[in-house]
Amino acid sequence: MAAYGYIGSMKAKPGHRDDVVSILLSGVDHLREAGCDLYIVSTSDADDVTIWVTEVWQSKAHHDASLQLPETKAAISEAMPMLTGEFSSRELTVAGGLGV
Amino acid sequence: MAAYGYIGSMKAKPGHRDDVVSILLSGVDHLREAGCDLYIVSTSDADDVTIWVTEVWQSKAHHDASLQLPETKAAISEAMPMLTGEFSSRELTVAGGLGV
Repeated sequence: MAAYGYIGSMKAKPGHRDDVVSILLSGVDHLREAGCDLYIVSTSDADDVTIWVTEVWQSKAHHDASLQLPETKAAISEAMPMLTGEFSSRELTVAGGLGV
Repeated sequence: MAAYGYIGSMKAKPGHRDDVVSILLSGVDHLREAGCDLYIVSTSDADDVTIWVTEVWQSKAHHDASLQLPETKAAISEAMPMLTGEFSSRELTVAGGLGV
């Protein structure tokens, strides 16, 4: 296996975390056909604003192409005003595991 | 869904990353029966030493109990000398996604 992995975080403005989570989950139906094998949206137990996303894609090219999809762009546009602008991201090579 | 999520990282001493990955993957067969739904081991594309693990468990209690299993303790003992001691961890509540 040499799938492309991505772990990212973002911070919502106070009170907007659940709205952002809903937006992130709204596009899930399109992901598999775009080459995504796994997409997990989680909220931090340490605060009320941080969201973590773990993704596994068939390739980095599939992931990058997905960012150009109209539904992805619309979701980003909708979520961005509710975010603080503090992001983190890590690009990874998936070695294996359970359920992947 | 209110599964327990965990995202952690560790750094291997130079040249030992792949050995640590092999150890992390060696116990996968025991994970599902311990209450683990998902376990992804990945290596950073940004350097040659960092390993990221994303896990989804039925509950935090399941995860914590797994750390007491003899096979888990043996794997930790085997890997620890190959690690630098730089760890990160985030405890999460899984909101949803694809494949989870």
